[in-house]
Amino acid sequence: MTKITKEDIDNAHLRIMPYIHRTPVLTNASINQMAGTELFFKCENFQKIGAFKIRGGMNASLSLTPDQLKNGIATHSSGNHAQAIAFAAKELGTKAYIVMPTSSPSVKVNAVKGYGAEVIMCEPNQAAREAALQKIVDETGAVFIHPYDDYRVITGQATCVKELLEEVPDLDAVIAPVGGGGCLSGTALGAHYFNPKIEVYAGEPEGAADAVLSFKSGKVEKAPFVKTIADGLMTTLSEQTLAIIREHVKDILLVSEEEIKAALKLVYERMKIVVEPSCVVPLAAVLKNKDLFKGKKTGIIITGGNVDLTKFNEWFQ
Amino acid sequence: MTKITKEDIDNAHLRIMPYIHRTPVLTNASINQMAGTELFFKCENFQKIGAFKIRGGMNASLSLTPDQLKNGIATHSSGNHAQAIAFAAKELGTKAYIVMPTSSPSVKVNAVKGYGAEVIMCEPNQAAREAALQKIVDETGAVFIHPYDDYRVITGQATCVKELLEEVPDLDAVIAPVGGGGCLSGTALGAHYFNPKIEVYAGEPEGAADAVLSFKSGKVEKAPFVKTIADGLMTTLSEQTLAIIREHVKDILLVSEEEIKAALKLVYERMKIVVEPSCVVPLAAVLKNKDLFKGKKTGIIITGGNVDLTKFNEWFQ
Repeated sequence: MTKITKEDIDNAHLRIMPYIHRTPVLTNASINQMAGTELFFKCENFQKIGAFKIRGGMNASLSLTPDQLKNGIATHSSGNHAQAIAFAAKELGTKAYIVMPTSSPSVKVNAVKGYGAEVIMCEPNQAAREAALQKIVDETGAVFIHPYDDYRVITGQATCVKELLEEVPDLDAVIAPVGGGGCLSGTALGAHYFNPKIEVYAGEPEGAADAVLSFKSGKVEKAPFVKTIADGLMTTLSEQTLAIIREHVKDILLVSEEEIKAALKLVYERMKIVVEPSCVVPLAAVLKNKDLFKGKKTGIIITGGNVDLTKFNEWFQ
Repeated sequence: MTKITKEDIDNAHLRIMPYIHRTPVLTNASINQMAGTELFFKCENFQKIGAFKIRGGMNASLSLTPDQLKNGIATHSSGNHAQAIAFAAKELGTKAYIVMPTSSPSVKVNAVKGYGAEVIMCEPNQAAREAALQKIVDETGAVFIHPYDDYRVITGQATCVKELLEEVPDLDAVIAPVGGGGCLSGTALGAHYFNPKIEVYAGEPEGAADAVLSFKSGKVEKAPFVKTIADGLMTTLSEQTLAIIREHVKDILLVSEEEIKAALKLVYERMKIVVEPSCVVPLAAVLKNKDLFKGKKTGIIITGGNVDLTKFNEWFQ
């Protein structure tokens, strides 16, 4: 495993800066009142491609030599990492090959194609996904960039909390959602290096509760069941993200679907911003654990805003 | 009719500044590309109470003497002006009486009650609304603050374009939605005083096309029919707002329900912000009239973001 240093994160930030937005940090008086503390939302829904994933995807792509880049870059993802790799390839003048399950919403497939990437459809299971990826890599010589099990990706994601801490240096805590752990491990490392006193927490859906188990056992575990509207958080950790999370994260807090929906409604109604359900899992965790966060100035990573508008009906009843 | 001066707008701005947010001006590269020009969105959905109406409501309330204020303030509104008056009363330590039609969504009624206002329900027609208001004014001695037919309200609304021009001084055009004309007449006056070269336009739904008729005939006309998702724009102009609009507005552009829905989708998907359908009528008009706006740096007033989330299903199909 490659040990990520503070300098790596600084360098990644300089490297990706021309390609990303410096997203705003928003606050909301009513939500603060409900939470009983001050919350600072780092709004990556306003990021290029609509999600923080551009940070990791861009950093990994920019770390490649021209010779490595020339045959293109590849990944498997039905989510925002797909768009990140497609965007990076376009910016760097190379090809992107994206393996997407046939279950992907057409709006996401079209977004990826819109950046000029080649989309390879596969059956919606892990084996089919990996086989399709291996095939395209063998055929084209493209470089595979994993959505989170990649130290360059994790380093890129760490730049988000770095920016948050530049804006609000005296945070007491920061909380991120956890799926594969790219965002959380990056956030934990960034917090550790730029302000070691900060407590790092994660929010996880009860309907995808793998990270909380892995965190306890020290092995990558599967969720007992997977059913959540927070569709960005369905993946399991990797050895690499788990190790960082075990070292630097204080706790992983579970929330129910009802709590996620209530937090989602709050963000839409009070903050007037469009966010993915995955984003509000940390807010739901803060509202559920008021005593834990009381009096702690807390940063929340709002990871993205790429939503299928026809899903609103399911979320807001 | 009271003639509003530049000094009036400057004074209103100073008066209301402690009570309002300075809202951000957002831009969006993809929407600029579609429009073929540079657009600057003044985002009053992030304003206190979630809408620009706080500007007029607060300015009118702050213009009252302590003696006038002591019996409270009153209005009839099912929309954002109701919240503005309720908020103003709370801030100024007096009572608010809000006449709302029984057809008002409970979320709006509750928001008004949440500010401590007394809500008086009435049948959903103009006569019942006016009778209920007159009754409460007679009983309580409260001062009536009309949603738009009030020079202090119009002066308050004018502070929005003032802020926009402070941020983007070299705009060539500005466009606002038109319902009762409070926002549009304020915008037109503000533009006139702070940069007289700016062309002022309005967007109006085909399903509430009264202002475009009044603009031509010079008399307050009714819409041939009223049916639109832009529910903030269903009212007709007043003599006062019409006179200002006829003097300072270049044209009123009609858009269809389909065009409003397409613009709404664009704002949610690309800008990641929650806005009311009324807000996107100007954007729909810009996208429909590309030749007119080509090469003109154009400001758009995003009036508010108070939405009933259960309506999403109707808007996004």
